[in-house]
Amino acid sequence: MQRLYIIKIGGNVLDDENALAHFLKDFASIQFPKILIHGGGKIATRIGEQLGIESKYVNGRRITDEPTRNLVSMVYGGLINQQIVTGLQSYHCNAIGLTGADGNVLPAVKRPVGEVDFGYVGDIEPKNVNTSFLHFLLKQNVVPVFAPLTYQGHDILNTNADTIASVLSVAMSKHFQIRLIYCFEKKGVLKDIADEQSVIHHINSDSYQKLLSQNILVDGILPKLENAFDAIHQGVNEVLIGGAADLLKNLGEETEGTLIKK
Amino acid sequence: MQRLYIIKIGGNVLDDENALAHFLKDFASIQFPKILIHGGGKIATRIGEQLGIESKYVNGRRITDEPTRNLVSMVYGGLINQQIVTGLQSYHCNAIGLTGADGNVLPAVKRPVGEVDFGYVGDIEPKNVNTSFLHFLLKQNVVPVFAPLTYQGHDILNTNADTIASVLSVAMSKHFQIRLIYCFEKKGVLKDIADEQSVIHHINSDSYQKLLSQNILVDGILPKLENAFDAIHQGVNEVLIGGAADLLKNLGEETEGTLIKK
Repeated sequence: MQRLYIIKIGGNVLDDENALAHFLKDFASIQFPKILIHGGGKIATRIGEQLGIESKYVNGRRITDEPTRNLVSMVYGGLINQQIVTGLQSYHCNAIGLTGADGNVLPAVKRPVGEVDFGYVGDIEPKNVNTSFLHFLLKQNVVPVFAPLTYQGHDILNTNADTIASVLSVAMSKHFQIRLIYCFEKKGVLKDIADEQSVIHHINSDSYQKLLSQNILVDGILPKLENAFDAIHQGVNEVLIGGAADLLKNLGEETEGTLIKK
Repeated sequence: MQRLYIIKIGGNVLDDENALAHFLKDFASIQFPKILIHGGGKIATRIGEQLGIESKYVNGRRITDEPTRNLVSMVYGGLINQQIVTGLQSYHCNAIGLTGADGNVLPAVKRPVGEVDFGYVGDIEPKNVNTSFLHFLLKQNVVPVFAPLTYQGHDILNTNADTIASVLSVAMSKHFQIRLIYCFEKKGVLKDIADEQSVIHHINSDSYQKLLSQNILVDGILPKLENAFDAIHQGVNEVLIGGAADLLKNLGEETEGTLIKK
């Protein structure tokens, strides 16, 4: 099967103009089919403050009310997405910006109101991804760039970018050998959070259980690892967690960062 | 040749939630291949005011400085474009939002600084439209929805929506029989601006010259007619100027509004 790289970048790349330019240049030079997913970064928070839109939290979890939803539509779907697409075009990479509504590529279900009403948040499933449209773009050498937005009916919804990356990977794994790469603020999963050199280079299901029982993983990395193993158990070949600056070193067999396999 | 409808809507539809919903429902039901282009409306001005971005004019013409360019990227490319795309999806029309950078579909040239520096404004030409990508989307029954944004290099640029509609029409006229429809706040070109019933139903080159010499056309309609005849002289079959609410009446041979032919 052909390889497909699915790469997610977050705030630490998006908020640093030089880091972003460097990343996009590296990304553009990847000679395999590829998909990029970006998060939001601090720009949305800053513009939200200027517009008087307050971030609301319930039990530590962010609520997407209507003003926040409109804010992220603008900032994620307009500003950041188009900056990335034009940046890639300037490096001769024929990118196309997408949200879940474009080409009906990623329909979602608005999260049901339980104890908490999360507002305009979309939950997604691999079976609902419009993989034929993505195939069709990739065949034309057009590179999809996803903003973390989905939709249901006429509602634009906010969806976590890590989740979009993993759901797209699972959906595309029937036709491609997937390497899912999470670009991260650290160089990989660290044994010792204080020591940037303590990267754990390989994790599999067994060593993951061992790491969990040893209690040495810090909170921030746990949902990422859970996401990674979820994807792997649903058909994704490998997940790599590493620094954005090491992207080009992470395309072959020898890699920097943490490579996660079954 | 197959028909292609290229339809432009502006502020009078975008700023009225009911009018927009009605329009999108009508647009979705058109059974021919179709492309939609939207302008900006008052939303950008309102959000710009909240962000403290002042509209700047030189000799009565708007200047797109960097804050304004970022504002329109967000509002046109993010908020309005995605509202339209999700609206169309909710009416079972498989739309995709595009700016000029997406799929390199509409590369532009930043307007050279002459007596006035217009800032981030893009000039476009039919020969540079990526018609094969548009064909390819239309063949998949995917409906392109253009925000009035183009690009050069890594710069997002602001381009007039009427101009995008006419340049796309000329570029696509080699392969389709084009009807270009400008949805307008009036029911068509009026003989008497005070009388909404005085629509001139047909204009050709000869009657256009006559109308010009009679001096009965008001200023606002002149650039639209100039645009229309420009398009027609470059291969577009017909241009229709009419009210958005009459859209479905404007798809056959009998039309409301003003039909312009060679």
